[in-house]
Amino acid sequence: MKLQAAIDRVSLEEAKKIAYELDGIVDIIELGTSIIKDYGLETLKAQNIKLENSELLLDLKTNDEGKYEFEKGFETSADILTVMGGSAIDTIEQTYAVSQAANKDILIDLIETNDDKIDKMSNCKNAIFGLHHSKDSAESFDAVASVAQFAQKHPNIQRIAVAGGIDKEQAKKIAQQGIATTIIVGGKIAGASDPVKAAKEFMEVIR
Amino acid sequence: MKLQAAIDRVSLEEAKKIAYELDGIVDIIELGTSIIKDYGLETLKAQNIKLENSELLLDLKTNDEGKYEFEKGFETSADILTVMGGSAIDTIEQTYAVSQAANKDILIDLIETNDDKIDKMSNCKNAIFGLHHSKDSAESFDAVASVAQFAQKHPNIQRIAVAGGIDKEQAKKIAQQGIATTIIVGGKIAGASDPVKAAKEFMEVIR
Repeated sequence: MKLQAAIDRVSLEEAKKIAYELDGIVDIIELGTSIIKDYGLETLKAQNIKLENSELLLDLKTNDEGKYEFEKGFETSADILTVMGGSAIDTIEQTYAVSQAANKDILIDLIETNDDKIDKMSNCKNAIFGLHHSKDSAESFDAVASVAQFAQKHPNIQRIAVAGGIDKEQAKKIAQQGIATTIIVGGKIAGASDPVKAAKEFMEVIR
Repeated sequence: MKLQAAIDRVSLEEAKKIAYELDGIVDIIELGTSIIKDYGLETLKAQNIKLENSELLLDLKTNDEGKYEFEKGFETSADILTVMGGSAIDTIEQTYAVSQAANKDILIDLIETNDDKIDKMSNCKNAIFGLHHSKDSAESFDAVASVAQFAQKHPNIQRIAVAGGIDKEQAKKIAQQGIATTIIVGGKIAGASDPVKAAKEFMEVIR
């Protein structure tokens, strides 16, 4: 199982600093939507962030104009971009096609996406499907149960990422469960006083 | 009825040039999602775009972290920001609260949003509800019929914007229909060889 550390709501300088510190410690380093919307893809392209041993994910959260956004996104050094499961199926298929053509990865963010819609994405065989509990939602989220239910409903989906306030205890249980292929951790790594130490602790419990 | 002209997929310099040219000619000038994701809110804040006679809408398309994104968005000179109808209801309520507290406007983008979800937004009485046909969708869109159906299903919604490949003929019909409060026109104004002339022609048919 891979560990993805998401960096959000900090200055671009701070985001870069944390990203380079975590390079090679976690599998995937995410620059969150806040970094993209605050600083923009043109700036991220100019910064040319090169990770040696981790993949770079930009949480682009595309809702429309799929081809344009993904082509722009892959002009940066990103290995993985994200599209919203709630966008039109044509948007999802466009972004999937761009990512496949570029030999890059795509994560479909399933915030508030219903099962019928997910079934329509069955052509996107190589996509990572992201079970994602909104940061804003007041409802609680049982990641382990959600992953089990999702896998049962969608047995053909191979790559499952899970995000939403995951702590070390939950991470351990998700790893033991053996279904999800990636867990995504936000503030509990990037927001820790020592992100490297926090990342290593998460890596320990999931290995 | 108001006319909103959306500017997309051009350089920031070009976007600003078109925005200042259209100031006072159309009611609302939109800087589209492509401008925000390409250049970022920090840059837009620094540019401090001041329109004399039109409102400025930034098509932020918030999916999550509603409070953060809207507070950041209103640090720019924007009068109106957008949130996705497909995001969690808590996200929509957060963004609505921020916009009301700032005495600014919010447009809820209803791409792929079902009626049950729209009914949950009934607290957002002052929001503009945006009927929006995805640019990527292969299905055709009858704007006049869509507006009529929407108003019938949601009789308490007062402010309705409509977007999706609208030309002058459709704009005229929507104006005559008298339900929608805003029509949003993209490439047919901002992408015209003479955006000012195109905007004036649209204003003529809707007045």
